[in-house]
This record gives sequence, structure tokens and C-alpha cells, in this order.
Amino acid sequence: MRGIEWLVDVRGCNEVALGDPDAIVALFETIVERAGLRPIGRPVWHQFPTTGGITAIWMLRESHLTIHTFPEFRSASLNLFCCTPRPAPGWREIIERTFGPAGEVGVRECPREYGDPVRTAAGMPPSAEAARP
Amino acid sequence: MRGIEWLVDVRGCNEVALGDPDAIVALFETIVERAGLRPIGRPVWHQFPTTGGITAIWMLRESHLTIHTFPEFRSASLNLFCCTPRPAPGWREIIERTFGPAGEVGVRECPREYGDPVRTAAGMPPSAEAARP
Repeated sequence: MRGIEWLVDVRGCNEVALGDPDAIVALFETIVERAGLRPIGRPVWHQFPTTGGITAIWMLRESHLTIHTFPEFRSASLNLFCCTPRPAPGWREIIERTFGPAGEVGVRECPREYGDPVRTAAGMPPSAEAARP
Repeated sequence: MRGIEWLVDVRGCNEVALGDPDAIVALFETIVERAGLRPIGRPVWHQFPTTGGITAIWMLRESHLTIHTFPEFRSASLNLFCCTPRPAPGWREIIERTFGPAGEVGVRECPREYGDPVRTAAGMPPSAEAARP
């Protein structure tokens, strides 16, 4: 089995939105909707008092969604890990909907191998997502 | 500023430990201790009833630690994101301490750029970690 993880590094954003928990939750909800994800509970987040930067995490049946914002650098680092491959959501459009025009949206797509082809061929579930109802 | 993220993909593990929440928390505590990390609160986790697989996440002042285990494939996918670089912990030794001998421990080290050198040079905090007391 092969999952997929996107590492999204954004620079040149609106620093007010980067320090706004409501904006971060709205961003997460947009990603979940666009990528057809199934959250577990609600996002958890922490705001750092010195900089206003936010760390937020949402567990998903498909794996996880995380972000760290750095208003002092006008930047953010986001991860989306899905245990089954799917098309990339339109990252720039999603990011700019929340944070306004961004100078740079760097996206890396990392395959994550976690299956055992021998056992899969022998009758294990065809996808871990299917096994996570 | 440059952070660092490790993507650690493990195969051929003990499936009992992979489905044991106490073992996952112990693994997280070992990583936190070895890498000198500062957690925010306690880990949050979810166990999938069908497979016994566990998704666990721990917010850190340095960013985050996550794992997804797949007992049905005897595998796990772990992330550690630190907003300031540091030496890699000994991943195989840490993994095997919890999960027993592993067939494969694949480690990728991904730089995460989030700073603005111009603003940093102009007097911004020398590290995001320093700004996150």
C-alpha cells in the first residue's frame, strides 16, 4: 500500500490571518471539503503568545492535517498525509482563499509506503482506508 | 529560517505493539526525551476498531510528532517536524525499543524553509524556537 503526503511551504502571506485561529480552522475545513477527507473530532490548536504563531492539527480517517504558522516571517508550513493516494487539491487557490495572495507556495509530494505486497496479495484488505470505516 | 522534518516509514514490526496505545505513548516519550523536545499537553490518539491501527499526534513547541500504525501490514508511518534543525535521533534504535526488531526503517530528512532572510537580518528573532518560550 502506498499513501501520499504533501509538504506545503508558504511564504509572503498576510500576517494577520496567520495569527487568527478562526482563519486556520476555516483553511482546514476547506482542505477537508476539497480533498474529500473524513475528520476525527475537531482540530486541536495552540497559539504561541510571543509571536501569535499557531500550531494546529486535525486527525483524519485518512491520516492527518497539520499547520504551523509564523506571522513574524509571514509564512506557514502545512502537511496533509493521506493513507490512500488522491489528486492534489489546488494548494495555491486554497491557501490564498484564507491567507490572501501568497508570494510563494512550495509543494512537495512524498509517497509513503506502508503495505506489504506479499500479505496484500494473500488476501489482506485492498486498502487501509477501506479498513478504516 | 529552516526547520527539519523526518519521514520515518517502518515495516516488518511486531503487530501487537503497533496496536497498543501504551506502546505508542512510550515511543513518543522516548523520542521527546532523545531529541530534547518540549511537548504541549499530552498526545492525542485514535484507535481504528477494524484493524486496531492507531493514529497519534503530539503537539510540540518545536512543531509536531505524529504516527499512523498499520498492524495489518506490520508497518507504521511517523513524522517529526522541528522548526529548528537538530541531529537526527537514532531512529532504528528508538523504533526497535518499542516495536521489536523491524525489517525496514526508511528515513527521509526534509528541510522546511519558513523564514525570510531579509527580515531576519533586519532584527527579527534569531530562531522561531527562541520566540516560542
